Amino acid sequence: MAGSPSQPDPFARVVHRFATAGKISAAQMMLNWDAQTNMPRNGAWARGEQMAALTEVSAELIGSTAAADELAEAEELAPLLEPDERADLREMRRAFVHAAAVPKDLQAQKSRLEQTLQSIWTTAKPANDFKSFARPFEQMLSLIREVAAAKAQALQTSPYSALMDEFDPGVGEAEVDPVFDELAVFLPPLIQQVREHQATWPRPAPFPGASIEAQAALAHRLALAIGHDPDAFRIDAAPHPFSIPHSPGDVRFTTRYDVDDIQFSIMATLHEAGHAMYEANLPREFAFRPGGMARGMTVHESQSLSVEMVAGRSREFLAFLAPTMAHAFGGDPAPYAIANVLNTWRRLDDGFIRVNADEISYPLHVILRYRLERALLSGDLAVGDLPTAWDDAFEAMFGRRPPDLAHGCLQDIHWAAGMVGYFPNYAMGSMLAAQLFECATADDHAILPSLEQGDFRPYFAWVTPRVHARASLVDFKALVEDATGAPLTPEAYKRHVKRRYLEEPPPE
Amino acid sequence: MAGSPSQPDPFARVVHRFATAGKISAAQMMLNWDAQTNMPRNGAWARGEQMAALTEVSAELIGSTAAADELAEAEELAPLLEPDERADLREMRRAFVHAAAVPKDLQAQKSRLEQTLQSIWTTAKPANDFKSFARPFEQMLSLIREVAAAKAQALQTSPYSALMDEFDPGVGEAEVDPVFDELAVFLPPLIQQVREHQATWPRPAPFPGASIEAQAALAHRLALAIGHDPDAFRIDAAPHPFSIPHSPGDVRFTTRYDVDDIQFSIMATLHEAGHAMYEANLPREFAFRPGGMARGMTVHESQSLSVEMVAGRSREFLAFLAPTMAHAFGGDPAPYAIANVLNTWRRLDDGFIRVNADEISYPLHVILRYRLERALLSGDLAVGDLPTAWDDAFEAMFGRRPPDLAHGCLQDIHWAAGMVGYFPNYAMGSMLAAQLFECATADDHAILPSLEQGDFRPYFAWVTPRVHARASLVDFKALVEDATGAPLTPEAYKRHVKRRYLEEPPPE
Repeated sequence: MAGSPSQPDPFARVVHRFATAGKISAAQMMLNWDAQTNMPRNGAWARGEQMAALTEVSAELIGSTAAADELAEAEELAPLLEPDERADLREMRRAFVHAAAVPKDLQAQKSRLEQTLQSIWTTAKPANDFKSFARPFEQMLSLIREVAAAKAQALQTSPYSALMDEFDPGVGEAEVDPVFDELAVFLPPLIQQVREHQATWPRPAPFPGASIEAQAALAHRLALAIGHDPDAFRIDAAPHPFSIPHSPGDVRFTTRYDVDDIQFSIMATLHEAGHAMYEANLPREFAFRPGGMARGMTVHESQSLSVEMVAGRSREFLAFLAPTMAHAFGGDPAPYAIANVLNTWRRLDDGFIRVNADEISYPLHVILRYRLERALLSGDLAVGDLPTAWDDAFEAMFGRRPPDLAHGCLQDIHWAAGMVGYFPNYAMGSMLAAQLFECATADDHAILPSLEQGDFRPYFAWVTPRVHARASLVDFKALVEDATGAPLTPEAYKRHVKRRYLEEPPPE
Repeated sequence: MAGSPSQPDPFARVVHRFATAGKISAAQMMLNWDAQTNMPRNGAWARGEQMAALTEVSAELIGSTAAADELAEAEELAPLLEPDERADLREMRRAFVHAAAVPKDLQAQKSRLEQTLQSIWTTAKPANDFKSFARPFEQMLSLIREVAAAKAQALQTSPYSALMDEFDPGVGEAEVDPVFDELAVFLPPLIQQVREHQATWPRPAPFPGASIEAQAALAHRLALAIGHDPDAFRIDAAPHPFSIPHSPGDVRFTTRYDVDDIQFSIMATLHEAGHAMYEANLPREFAFRPGGMARGMTVHESQSLSVEMVAGRSREFLAFLAPTMAHAFGGDPAPYAIANVLNTWRRLDDGFIRVNADEISYPLHVILRYRLERALLSGDLAVGDLPTAWDDAFEAMFGRRPPDLAHGCLQDIHWAAGMVGYFPNYAMGSMLAAQLFECATADDHAILPSLEQGDFRPYFAWVTPRVHARASLVDFKALVEDATGAPLTPEAYKRHVKRRYLEEPPPE
């Protein structure tokens, strides 16, 4: 298979090995997409078996001694390679370290449990049933602890940072803690101030409901506006909106349609379409190769939040969105007046759900999860105490208490999917989105006016070469500094939210 | 990966290896299903890369020297195994011989070309464009010739029979030739006789068109009648109806909806639902293992044709189908009178399309393809001459000439999918369907009356233990003889079509 002896060049050989693993991973992503959009419910066991088998062969491909030998041989010749090839080789080494650190039986066991636990979560969440979730989640945590310990040793870092490194290399606890500590102090009084500021606004007129068909047509329209190629993407409905790492020419993301809540699917579509543009613009010549992947989840989230939050809640874009909604849904045009759309979109949220949260509350939702999952991982928090710990922490941050688990600790799929160490990037992504967008609009004054026409081309003309096209061929720090001239800090975000939420004129 | 040294029992070790390959194959089936139902058109290249990667790792798993060593070790201990385990081991050996015979680069190259060529076929067929298809199809044939030569040597048989063996072990040219020679003589005069017989029938009233939604609801209703579990199957639309080897709990098949032709989707649904019942009833304890797969494509086709043709065009089933159609489509009930449905369903076909063909013409369509593809494989027929050779042969058999390629040599996806040696099973399956159904209805007199209620349970109660549950744990010959008390011959089919088409009373 990989590393066929008929392939004489050591670099080409190791590229073939890691690209084969990349293709298997793309196949797994597609199967996971299918599990959430199409699969009959009785298919969960078999899908789990398939995913575990693919994980097993993939781990063998990139984590075996054969992989180590091929890597070492190619690394000896690194000085002869082009810079991008050297970067690709570095990413292969990183993938190897992650794969080799974790015993393959453990990896397969975790992959299998992910399928089961997601299926349990799907039922437990609407049933407000923590009991049936708790026991398998404890098993999952114990597997995750084993993985984290193994990776921590291989990477010489803390167990939690070791988990983060897989999703988000270059963004560990050392990078997150100062940002989150600052936000945890900065945001609550800001929220209070904005709430007072908005108290004088008129009550927004509610949007009427709309058919799934009309919402789906609008979602498609928005994806095209953002820049997706009609022959290369699809949007489907899934319980939890997500996008999958693309295969070239085949970008998929999902949203959720609620006939009584048109806002949700619009926001989810903008968010996932932003992720998907990053994937669609990755360099084709490095497709399936470690150096050709997205740089990490903080960068990824910056791309979704740039579209959904920073651009997507700008006055300019809302001036395009409002009449587009009126056209899509018909009926009384009054709710789609720009002032009402702005009033609705900018309103501070008083709910419980991260994916519905406003631009200021959002990072606090993330900080809550970050703290709880670190405590779960270390064992400081027992699984049985999670619902109460969640509700207490939420109440302390937001002054209101979740009514049930679907609005509390069972709202997200991540833990059911075995993902711990993933949440921080959502808030780090907010910071990066603001920092990138501030630079982009300073560099190109056409970006904001174009959004009024629903035209994202000037924005992507700025961001694609600086972020998307660089894939994983530079590290996180270099990517951020090359694009914005400075390391990542929360300052641009703080300027952005103060300006937007305290200084812009009220809707009228 | 497979064959982990921590697994001490040689049989368990080799089962793990082959079951891993079985799971990868199930993943490939799902990706292929997706390519035909969901994939954006620009996704073809990437999907081809993924399929080739999976084929490569799978071939390595079951065709490597490590596989050979593990197999040999397990085979030494075969006398200690249960009979079903020994059968499973025999099937592993067969899978090994197929996989080891073909160089992996060749396998991967073919897999990649399959994706491209199917995509070209999808465009070429409606465009009546043989030119863009011919060149890559020649490449495909040349790859298939290499595969066939390698397998012929390993299996000590002819190249064409070696290709058949992969799809249909136990059914080679030696089994097919006498049956097809007999049918080629028997069918044309029978068709003539039936045509004269039907000349006195009234013209059937055409069915009105119906929305895709109404047709899809009826397809779902029919799948339930046949016995599918609502939590374990799905029907989708695809250009060429197919069903995929199932994963336990997740059975998928497709049909095609044409608002002007309600008959097509009903027949395709019955056909694919029959295939899918076989897959759904395979023994779960052998899931993903070579011994747990369907016995081969002749048996598979017997299951689809039993439902679609033998049961599906019986007076009894049509007495259920006619009012069910009336209920599904509403409007004027006259076209759904039983006599008119019978008149329509039993009518000899005067078209050009295999999947639309009537029960008597169908085997001739297959014999045509069998002869042409053997000539293509041997090189006796040049690709450039195929359209004319097809049309000439069709005209000689049926007395009419295809108007275009979509009604001629580009009508089927098989060659584009790299499948040569596959077609014969369609006609061999007709023979087996008739032979099984004759025995079933002789054994259990409740089978036919139950079909009047749309109840297939007595039929499946007979066929499941004798066919489905035996999977590949017996060989083809034993399966047929155990189930029907005789080897496979065309006699039951000949009795069946003469009785149905010449002796049953006309519709009234």
